[in-house]
Amino acid sequence: LNKGKIKPFRKEFLSLHNYDQAQFYLSLSEEERKKLYHFLSPAEMADLFEEIEEENEETEQYLKEMNKQYAADMLSKMYTDNAVDILKQLEVADQQKYLALMPKEEAGELIDLLDYKQSTAGSIMTTEFAFIFAGQTIKEAMADIKRQAQEAETIYYIYVVDAERKLVGVLSLRDLILRSDDELIRDIMGERVISVHINEDQEDVAHTIRDYDLLAVPVIDEENRLVGIITVDDIIDVIDEEAASDYSGLAAVDVEERTENPFVAASKRLPWLITLLFLGMGTSTLISRYESMVSTASILAVFISLITGTAGNAGTQSLAVAVRKLADKDNEKKNNLKLIFKELATGLVSGLVTGLVIFLVVGIWQHNFILGFVIGMAMLCAITVASLAGSFIPLLMDRLGFDPAVASGPFITTLSDLTSVFIYFTIASYFLSFF
Amino acid sequence: LNKGKIKPFRKEFLSLHNYDQAQFYLSLSEEERKKLYHFLSPAEMADLFEEIEEENEETEQYLKEMNKQYAADMLSKMYTDNAVDILKQLEVADQQKYLALMPKEEAGELIDLLDYKQSTAGSIMTTEFAFIFAGQTIKEAMADIKRQAQEAETIYYIYVVDAERKLVGVLSLRDLILRSDDELIRDIMGERVISVHINEDQEDVAHTIRDYDLLAVPVIDEENRLVGIITVDDIIDVIDEEAASDYSGLAAVDVEERTENPFVAASKRLPWLITLLFLGMGTSTLISRYESMVSTASILAVFISLITGTAGNAGTQSLAVAVRKLADKDNEKKNNLKLIFKELATGLVSGLVTGLVIFLVVGIWQHNFILGFVIGMAMLCAITVASLAGSFIPLLMDRLGFDPAVASGPFITTLSDLTSVFIYFTIASYFLSFF
Repeated sequence: LNKGKIKPFRKEFLSLHNYDQAQFYLSLSEEERKKLYHFLSPAEMADLFEEIEEENEETEQYLKEMNKQYAADMLSKMYTDNAVDILKQLEVADQQKYLALMPKEEAGELIDLLDYKQSTAGSIMTTEFAFIFAGQTIKEAMADIKRQAQEAETIYYIYVVDAERKLVGVLSLRDLILRSDDELIRDIMGERVISVHINEDQEDVAHTIRDYDLLAVPVIDEENRLVGIITVDDIIDVIDEEAASDYSGLAAVDVEERTENPFVAASKRLPWLITLLFLGMGTSTLISRYESMVSTASILAVFISLITGTAGNAGTQSLAVAVRKLADKDNEKKNNLKLIFKELATGLVSGLVTGLVIFLVVGIWQHNFILGFVIGMAMLCAITVASLAGSFIPLLMDRLGFDPAVASGPFITTLSDLTSVFIYFTIASYFLSFF
Repeated sequence: LNKGKIKPFRKEFLSLHNYDQAQFYLSLSEEERKKLYHFLSPAEMADLFEEIEEENEETEQYLKEMNKQYAADMLSKMYTDNAVDILKQLEVADQQKYLALMPKEEAGELIDLLDYKQSTAGSIMTTEFAFIFAGQTIKEAMADIKRQAQEAETIYYIYVVDAERKLVGVLSLRDLILRSDDELIRDIMGERVISVHINEDQEDVAHTIRDYDLLAVPVIDEENRLVGIITVDDIIDVIDEEAASDYSGLAAVDVEERTENPFVAASKRLPWLITLLFLGMGTSTLISRYESMVSTASILAVFISLITGTAGNAGTQSLAVAVRKLADKDNEKKNNLKLIFKELATGLVSGLVTGLVIFLVVGIWQHNFILGFVIGMAMLCAITVASLAGSFIPLLMDRLGFDPAVASGPFITTLSDLTSVFIYFTIASYFLSFF
């Protein structure tokens, strides 16, 4: 298809959805891509690029393949939020190069957006939105909207501003087409506008859009001026990222790992593994202090991994529940002390049941109910402590201003190994004569 | 506010966003809620109920507080997808009761929707959508849309059907208002409609909406007839659920646990804990077979937890990466064998580095480099095997048609304990004379 006539190719290609165009583009070789740049205008290429995932590492390469002016034109035709995502991946020198080739106004907007701190509303908003004035009639407003419709990322929510660009109201396009032409915007607009502040965290923005079932939310600055909008499709990406980062935390690995190279993958996982190895060495050192006890009663060694493993599992459960509870911003009245108490009590109950089970199993298996009692007691205490740690540590991190999700499962497990072993041998030492 | 005059209360209350109304409602006592039912019409109450989370356990209680006819009216005024969510939580007898009190047409639609299998497109779609015919002019179509606008959940995408209700095209409201009145729908509509099938899994629907950045997607049946739409706000809920269920899998606990009661919480976590306990007993049994070896060389006991722990951590990392890769439906050409090889190689590299580190640390610490070599070798093998298991097991589950996310971290950890211990003691047995 790509090897020949421009016209039939363009006709076929442009009838595809942008996402499918992008998938096609990603499947091409460098040479084929270069042909495509000749076939398509910067604006058409911009539509395609809107659909390329922002984390794609090769975007930089793609831009370099293009004529510089073509690339700059394409970037300036894109919605500002996506153009900024691409520019952020470039070296500062490259950013400047492309920005210099753009129309001044476009470049200025992009430069402003590049300044916003990572993960704030400002950094993900787009500046292409439709707005009208409160004093307009519907007819006037509709004419304005039609004029803005080409540029704006969405025209389904239309924001109403006053002379100073302050946000004073909102209307949906649906409301607008249902009303008669001569009504005043002021009389029909909604005055309680759900908006977000430009420095607000993107996760909070996601919660707002999700809770209120919005298609877009306006972004305002300190003076309540409308500076941008964030649309729901960008929020879905934020929610996906958030889930991936929570998941990564729980497993102590970047789950979005894109490399196919085992050396690169290992080099990213090893820092965690080695850190945890040294934490684990603490447990080994502790056991070595009880070595003489183990050589007297080697049966004790049989149950070390059972107790540490089970306590670790209980700690992981507790951790996961606590991290999700903390992430649930809806729950404004989050009562941290209550959460810890609940996890403590849950750990106690789980520990009692598990302890009882293992008491019976070990007692019958080894014909030694005193050994069973020691294992059971150790299990009870170790599970309780692990459950407490599983809720306390993420809570502490939250309080200290860290993301509680980075308190990973493996970290809790390794930490609980240490306490479990200590509890186990301390209890066992009192009953040593019975084994 | 609630204790007095209807009019000022209604004025204030109805000016709130439905989500805030719902939050207010949820904060009320039973008596206050009952007052509210008198203050608001079923239709107003329906708007509020759209915003109450579907998993709220108390919804059943709320319905019981209402007059039966009031509840039925409210349900029939709600968007069908949300009404179905509520009905699904009720006993069949209660469902019948409310359905019997509804207008026949409404009840029929709800009954149809209740029949769709859980988690399919059919079960989350709404039947309130705007549609027009290909032969209409824009003017005729706009009149149709205005008529449908009150009912439809969204009118921003308008679907075009033929005389048999088959889906033939799509238009956005934006396109529509930008064109002149006498153009024919047929000439301006998009003919490549992205749609989903009624039996498609809701996660696939979520991927479609996310990839194509849609606000809604049409649902079609076997004969290509348009039967409903799914809007982006419902998809956000699906994505949230999906993330929570992946997270739950990794930690072997239902992270959405809503109970505050530690007994209930423990009873939900214990099945996993006890299952894993018995799996862990396997490891203990294995160690007990080496008990005589441990009593000769008690230093071996010191490193059991270090080796099992580190291998477990590596297995968890590998698992999390594999589960995410499998969930990524974009990746059509997912090469399973390649994934396993990559994880195997990554495990080998990680194992080599970790093994080398522990060889040096143990060698220096214990002044015994042969012991260091045994621990290091065991570490290398155990990490490699755990990484392999971490990718192989979810892949196997995927092949067998299970959700790979239920292969939980604790399960992999406990399983890898068993293999790690076996590897460790097997290697150690060859070098026993040196300790």
